[in-house]
Amino acid sequence: MAVGEQEKRERAVTDAAVASFDETKDERLREIVQSLTRHLHAFARDVRLTQEEWEAGIGFLTRVGHITDDKRQEFILLSDVLGLSMLTVGINAPAEPRATESTVFGPFFVEGAPEVALGGDISRGAKGMPCWVTGTIRDTAGNPVADARIEVWEADEDGFYDVQYDGDRSAGRGRLRSDGDGGYRFWSVRPAAYPIPTDGPVSELMAATDRSVMRPAHVHFKVDAPGHRTLITHIFAAGDPYLDSDAVFGVKESLIVEFAEHRPGTAPDGRVLDTAWSSVEFDIVLEPLS
Amino acid sequence: MAVGEQEKRERAVTDAAVASFDETKDERLREIVQSLTRHLHAFARDVRLTQEEWEAGIGFLTRVGHITDDKRQEFILLSDVLGLSMLTVGINAPAEPRATESTVFGPFFVEGAPEVALGGDISRGAKGMPCWVTGTIRDTAGNPVADARIEVWEADEDGFYDVQYDGDRSAGRGRLRSDGDGGYRFWSVRPAAYPIPTDGPVSELMAATDRSVMRPAHVHFKVDAPGHRTLITHIFAAGDPYLDSDAVFGVKESLIVEFAEHRPGTAPDGRVLDTAWSSVEFDIVLEPLS
Repeated sequence: MAVGEQEKRERAVTDAAVASFDETKDERLREIVQSLTRHLHAFARDVRLTQEEWEAGIGFLTRVGHITDDKRQEFILLSDVLGLSMLTVGINAPAEPRATESTVFGPFFVEGAPEVALGGDISRGAKGMPCWVTGTIRDTAGNPVADARIEVWEADEDGFYDVQYDGDRSAGRGRLRSDGDGGYRFWSVRPAAYPIPTDGPVSELMAATDRSVMRPAHVHFKVDAPGHRTLITHIFAAGDPYLDSDAVFGVKESLIVEFAEHRPGTAPDGRVLDTAWSSVEFDIVLEPLS
Repeated sequence: MAVGEQEKRERAVTDAAVASFDETKDERLREIVQSLTRHLHAFARDVRLTQEEWEAGIGFLTRVGHITDDKRQEFILLSDVLGLSMLTVGINAPAEPRATESTVFGPFFVEGAPEVALGGDISRGAKGMPCWVTGTIRDTAGNPVADARIEVWEADEDGFYDVQYDGDRSAGRGRLRSDGDGGYRFWSVRPAAYPIPTDGPVSELMAATDRSVMRPAHVHFKVDAPGHRTLITHIFAAGDPYLDSDAVFGVKESLIVEFAEHRPGTAPDGRVLDTAWSSVEFDIVLEPLS
């Protein structure tokens, strides 16, 4: 068969699939599914996808689906390691350069984390060096944002989130509200670098493609306040050896902060520590919604 | 921010994600994942994917994963309705125009279907007009292919496969072997047009995009014989109203066959029927592997 004829036959399949969505009344949905169909087909044609590779892809997605539950989101992890999550963050980045930058959401957020009073301890048994985290939440004009909802979550010193352990323990995560001056403060543990989960299909993909699975040490923040764009971000620990090779492409220069280390003694809130402890400050700037 | 700068930032994410696979030792895998990453990113940029749309996509894939089990393959169904399955068939179509054409595998194949003797009945309780199916299996030079493994599966007259009913009943599917002359024959039921499963995320997508969920009446065939390319195909019933609008783009002209209808009486194998019955002939040509 002539090459031209083969190409024509393949194009006809793509055209039929794209045209099948022509009657979609929701214009935005039509745009999305038609573009997705075109790009997906272009991928299959470009690589000359074999039947066995297509089957392997179906099997891979099936395993991703089966390991995903309400505590583990392997599809988000897949999107993360393909850079799609970070690209989506970039596409939707505030045009406002004074606002705190966003980064990936990640697969470990859990709805309904424990409410913690300002100054309380979110570690709740998570292992690691105690860490005092403080900061203020302001808008881009410099006004404090009171009563903002702050959700934080992080891995322990062994690099595991609570949900990666057996049982239903909640540790290293919490929900707080900023005070009347936009201030917030809480105890947790100094975060550690860690590999993305090594027991699932995404880590198999990373191994098969000879990629590093490490993420530099970080703490996740999600900050919501009425009238402001929701911020999803991290702080990264300065000096971490994986800052230049984050498996999910999440590092931004402006999000790298210094975690100070202190000898045993009295912390700013009066807590007396008989071990070394750490502290970090992270001021957050939210973009008002227009 | 200037448009050029925004575009540069987005390109940088794509470049980093593609480059992360540079060290993949398996060259074919590298080609596939880098192409997939490029096309996936191009899609997100083209449609300016929002965070909410990304979340909706993650949620959709999660539902597809959760409804998939060993009897139901919603990822295959998704690939089918996006035309990706048929494109993959087209990419891998034998260059040999004398061979029987392929079409989609579909989501309803089950491993380990019952072994049925030649001339036996694969319906095993599936409802519908009895249908006598016969044909021969030859190679492209016209030689009969003896002892070929034939797997057939089909929906009943209500448009449901056995696995769509409660319980573990196997009906309307079976495994046979061609005889010394390449001949095969079996009883089943006349297939009916049917909607793709209407209780899953793929049918939600079809509803949201105002697409028809119907497939024209067909019987699935999978034919394996040593030294020959495996054939995965259907026969479609001539005259079916959905031949031009198959939800999965599977119809090919050469696969449309006439299902004859007969008055009650004696069938060619001596079976006496007191109801109307149908018959169809389908000769199969396999491509020898070089």
